[in-house]
Amino acid sequence: MQALPSLSLWNRWWQTVCAKMPFSDWLLVGTLLALGGSWNVIRADGGSERNCSAIPPYLPSTVVNTTLRLQALREAMSSVNVSAYIIPGTDAHLSEYIAPRDARMAFMTGFTGSAGTAVVTLNKAVLWTDSRYWVQAERQMDCNWELEKDVSISSIADWLIREVSDTDNIGFDPFLFSIQTYESYSYNLVPAKLMLKSIPDNLVDRVWTDRPLIPPDNLIRLPDRVVERTWQKKVEHIRIQMTDNPYKPTAVLLSALDETAWLFNLRGNDIPYNPFFYSYTLLTLNEIWLFVHKDRVTEDLKLYLNSTCFPLAHCVQLLEYEQVRVMLKDYMTTSGVKVWIGTEYTNYALYELITPEEKLLTSAYSPVLTTKAVKDETEQRILRDAHVRDAVAVIQLLMWLEKVVPEGKETEMTAAYYVNECRSKQKDSRGPSFETISASGPNAALAHYSPSNATSRKLTVDEMYLVDSGGQYLDGTTDITRTVHWGIPTDMQKDAFTRVLMGNIEISRTIFPSGTKGVNMEMLGRRALWEVGLNYGHGTGHGVGNYFGVHDWPVGFQGNNIPFREGMFTSIEPGYYKENDFGIRIEDVVVIVPAHTKYGHNYLTFETVSLVPYDRKLIDTSLMSPQQLQWLDNYYLTIRELMGAELDRQGLTEEKTWMLKHTVPFQSATASAAVSSLSLTLTALATALLHILL
Amino acid sequence: MQALPSLSLWNRWWQTVCAKMPFSDWLLVGTLLALGGSWNVIRADGGSERNCSAIPPYLPSTVVNTTLRLQALREAMSSVNVSAYIIPGTDAHLSEYIAPRDARMAFMTGFTGSAGTAVVTLNKAVLWTDSRYWVQAERQMDCNWELEKDVSISSIADWLIREVSDTDNIGFDPFLFSIQTYESYSYNLVPAKLMLKSIPDNLVDRVWTDRPLIPPDNLIRLPDRVVERTWQKKVEHIRIQMTDNPYKPTAVLLSALDETAWLFNLRGNDIPYNPFFYSYTLLTLNEIWLFVHKDRVTEDLKLYLNSTCFPLAHCVQLLEYEQVRVMLKDYMTTSGVKVWIGTEYTNYALYELITPEEKLLTSAYSPVLTTKAVKDETEQRILRDAHVRDAVAVIQLLMWLEKVVPEGKETEMTAAYYVNECRSKQKDSRGPSFETISASGPNAALAHYSPSNATSRKLTVDEMYLVDSGGQYLDGTTDITRTVHWGIPTDMQKDAFTRVLMGNIEISRTIFPSGTKGVNMEMLGRRALWEVGLNYGHGTGHGVGNYFGVHDWPVGFQGNNIPFREGMFTSIEPGYYKENDFGIRIEDVVVIVPAHTKYGHNYLTFETVSLVPYDRKLIDTSLMSPQQLQWLDNYYLTIRELMGAELDRQGLTEEKTWMLKHTVPFQSATASAAVSSLSLTLTALATALLHILL
Repeated sequence: MQALPSLSLWNRWWQTVCAKMPFSDWLLVGTLLALGGSWNVIRADGGSERNCSAIPPYLPSTVVNTTLRLQALREAMSSVNVSAYIIPGTDAHLSEYIAPRDARMAFMTGFTGSAGTAVVTLNKAVLWTDSRYWVQAERQMDCNWELEKDVSISSIADWLIREVSDTDNIGFDPFLFSIQTYESYSYNLVPAKLMLKSIPDNLVDRVWTDRPLIPPDNLIRLPDRVVERTWQKKVEHIRIQMTDNPYKPTAVLLSALDETAWLFNLRGNDIPYNPFFYSYTLLTLNEIWLFVHKDRVTEDLKLYLNSTCFPLAHCVQLLEYEQVRVMLKDYMTTSGVKVWIGTEYTNYALYELITPEEKLLTSAYSPVLTTKAVKDETEQRILRDAHVRDAVAVIQLLMWLEKVVPEGKETEMTAAYYVNECRSKQKDSRGPSFETISASGPNAALAHYSPSNATSRKLTVDEMYLVDSGGQYLDGTTDITRTVHWGIPTDMQKDAFTRVLMGNIEISRTIFPSGTKGVNMEMLGRRALWEVGLNYGHGTGHGVGNYFGVHDWPVGFQGNNIPFREGMFTSIEPGYYKENDFGIRIEDVVVIVPAHTKYGHNYLTFETVSLVPYDRKLIDTSLMSPQQLQWLDNYYLTIRELMGAELDRQGLTEEKTWMLKHTVPFQSATASAAVSSLSLTLTALATALLHILL
Repeated sequence: MQALPSLSLWNRWWQTVCAKMPFSDWLLVGTLLALGGSWNVIRADGGSERNCSAIPPYLPSTVVNTTLRLQALREAMSSVNVSAYIIPGTDAHLSEYIAPRDARMAFMTGFTGSAGTAVVTLNKAVLWTDSRYWVQAERQMDCNWELEKDVSISSIADWLIREVSDTDNIGFDPFLFSIQTYESYSYNLVPAKLMLKSIPDNLVDRVWTDRPLIPPDNLIRLPDRVVERTWQKKVEHIRIQMTDNPYKPTAVLLSALDETAWLFNLRGNDIPYNPFFYSYTLLTLNEIWLFVHKDRVTEDLKLYLNSTCFPLAHCVQLLEYEQVRVMLKDYMTTSGVKVWIGTEYTNYALYELITPEEKLLTSAYSPVLTTKAVKDETEQRILRDAHVRDAVAVIQLLMWLEKVVPEGKETEMTAAYYVNECRSKQKDSRGPSFETISASGPNAALAHYSPSNATSRKLTVDEMYLVDSGGQYLDGTTDITRTVHWGIPTDMQKDAFTRVLMGNIEISRTIFPSGTKGVNMEMLGRRALWEVGLNYGHGTGHGVGNYFGVHDWPVGFQGNNIPFREGMFTSIEPGYYKENDFGIRIEDVVVIVPAHTKYGHNYLTFETVSLVPYDRKLIDTSLMSPQQLQWLDNYYLTIRELMGAELDRQGLTEEKTWMLKHTVPFQSATASAAVSSLSLTLTALATALLHILL
């Protein structure tokens, strides 16, 4: 696993979520961030913040000296005649995770947080980042850099308008701009007569002499046993959608890394936690061009891809990754072409070659992303299987913690290590699917927390503990969160936990028409919390893939996700976070399956494929409806059945005993039983009375 | 009340909804329409359809001869050098209801349905309308007209591309195009090299010699007793929003009729059911221009508007309605101006004068519409009051029907007449707020039904009956739907009715954070139906105003509605429709009020202000949760309290008795009571036993 500092799951997800969520959700996040901030953790790191007003300026040991690299960048800027240069934090595929070689903002500023934008002019250098990172930025940046706190593009543009003269050029790398990012800058800068200048040859790369290389690893093809649709079938399927489209596109351009990986059933190792490789695809009705680093394609793979074949329609022509713009430009000169792109993941460097309109067909997502969203039968089966094995690892973690935490020697770090080890022993394991969030007490209330040596808390029976972790397996990607308490929880903790669980259950058990959007039902995950004035400031769930990104968009509960259909997988993960106290999240992965209803058809519901019991101690069944308790008991029956067999198969008897103990049905033990027994008592009394009287 | 044929509430609402709803909702509507179609009703009208292939063509008496007017239009088209002319069905304010003088599509085609687009070329004439209207169109159009059935703009554009030569001009009246409509046509036509030609002088009007006049009625100002914010205060409030806006607009342009009516506390009589008048407003930081037909502004009103005053900032300068483009063009020549428009309601005729970008600031809705959405304390109080009086009329209708229906003499028409009469007797009545939907049996399953002599069914104890009606009052606008059965409902009817009611209650009782969007919680209105595979194909609710349009957008549960805030009013109206059998809808108006929660603040909930009981016979309490029953009993307590007092005040003792009978609490009468009584019995027995034994 290649670790980037601070490149945790939550960072990246929040960044994506924030970039795409409607304004009202932004506010929610803002509120939580304002409450939850990460300052304490970072302060606990031992260092302190820079003081640029001191004489001489005080710089902690954590800052990076950026003087020379800034000087070099400014020379590069002058050579291409720009007065300002914008450095975003993303990569050319608008990826959620980026590789170290794409961490240009971090290289230039010293700041390693996952969200931010840097701007360099000929005499100033400024970083914009949100409140989660203000302290971290003050500790990592030297006094060449100013920190700005309003991260909206309009605020960056306003700053540029003040700093840069009229008619000057603002440079940017179009590969690192989404279409929407470009349009936002343009909307704000054009009225002020500032010109955006697209510079496809990145200026930071020119001065970054020790920029990390692309990993040398070859690409791999998925084994046949995990594949139902060959790449040829997938290509055919996409071409049918092109032919059926009334706008008659002649080509589909794939820009996101998971699009190409999915289409060809290939995987790589270029991005931490994500089995992707740098690539683009241009698929036309007659030809297929795959842009990759060709030296990483083995002879076997070339054979697999029919890279020398005839007719061309069924042959993958390999071109160098860097050739994508040249090839696309060339294709656009052909008469009568129309290129179909997904606007959410196509970078501006490609987009600017495809306009004007008559050559462009846009949808939010490419047909590859919408087709990928629905798993075929094999993908469904193996992804369920992966979750069974994954649950073994999580059960092992929870059982172990229950035993060892009272001894007082374990920490967030050792727990994270333990669960990663457990997963690594499961069949087809390919490492964690993101950096494990192992968080005790107040750390669990931080939005983007993963433990480090500096922050790791000892686990105790006095604090709640949240573990959000997942694995990559050759057959599937997993993601599960459990929150537990090894001592005596407070009433508020039980209240909040039970309401989070009720939220998870209310979504899970809902029956809905095929085509319903997740965003229009995710409030079911919040409703029990809302009743008592609680809420959470993040999304409610995201798609998961088969040995893919742990956030397999565009499936999920966000506003920009596509409608739910049978065969999609998504996480459901409501939570609640109490500042400086505790954090709760209950996350399961579910598959969308048909629901059989009295009058209708084409109705769907969710079936939970994560198979780990919840902490009974935290559940207040008196708050729950009979339907919710029934759902919970049914779920536990499923766990007993599937995990019982798997734990037997793996010869894990202690784990099986633990699992059975934690999945005892609730209903026979509570209300309905109590009512029945009261009735029985009274009836017995009455019967006795009658006997006496008669 | 000016009645336009077929201009029913549902027509218009559906048209608006369809134009604005996301694609997935469209599908829902499509399904319902396909199931529910209106053919039977129209066929029952006695006439039959045209047959243009017969020799000679057969034309029923219901068609309009359009030969001469088409000839005249084509001459007009030639004179302005266009090969095709697009005739939409809307008006210059993109109104939901239009005045007879704006029914240009109906004049040209003969077709009076509310949804459609006509296109005339030099040798063809075609109407596009959706499945609800295909039969009606075949009955009303002569053989000059073809009917096309795919109503998407892309299909109209495809037809134009086939019919019209390259580089020819397609004419349109920019006043009748929304910005989005223009952009859709442009997107489709430009690649085919067809040019759209904006012709602000409407060509149909040139040939429509007997076009209805603007009503001569003067505008009226609202009496002080219903006004809290004077127009001066409202102007000040909007100007503050302009100053606070970071984009620094210098003007706000108001295009929708309710915007100007609201801003100046004025009302008119130009549109059926809607107390609006033709108008635009251009509000700058220093001046106010009101565009109206000046001869309808009395001297008193001129005084009220300070129309001759100094300083200009607080003086409403009156300009003729038709001068809006001239004035706006003039304003745009001023340096440094920036005009703020709401894109949803600004027509293209004004929009095209404001571009380019540096002079334009857009939001979906103008600051007037978003400010209007939250009612002030006076508006809230008087709108609640109007609902109390309105409930008297609906209670009178339901009580009367209960008595007279078994006698077999009443019809949908007489019932509609009766409720209108009842309303007209209430204080401050200003007529119905839309054409009453009074529908028995299968008619209630039709999406856009209002009774006519031809379709009106007799009311019987064997059919369910749905009445959706509302009133205009000087202090408020109402809208309520009740569904009843005077005989013995089937199990399916009770099941469906109860689930619709459960949907209404689940939304009504929900607690949510301020700023939640209606579209993200409206599934609560559907969930109980979804559980058994039922659904409805329309929206779940819309804002209501104070003596305003009955659909007071942008408040409501649609995707393009703004987030809910305290002080907004909306309808909640889930339903269920069984083709050829029955229709159920339960609609109440609610106000958004603060909710007091255990841990949080800034949480809201709904309080129902419609005060008419539901039909108890149709409620299966065994399906409902304890919380739902509790809500229902609380609601009935409110009805008893508020309506008891009002019916006393109006001396309506029979109505009061009826109301009390229909609002007996459910919970003491059903489950909890039954359980209690069983316990009591058993306890008594046990006690007796003990007595005997001791």
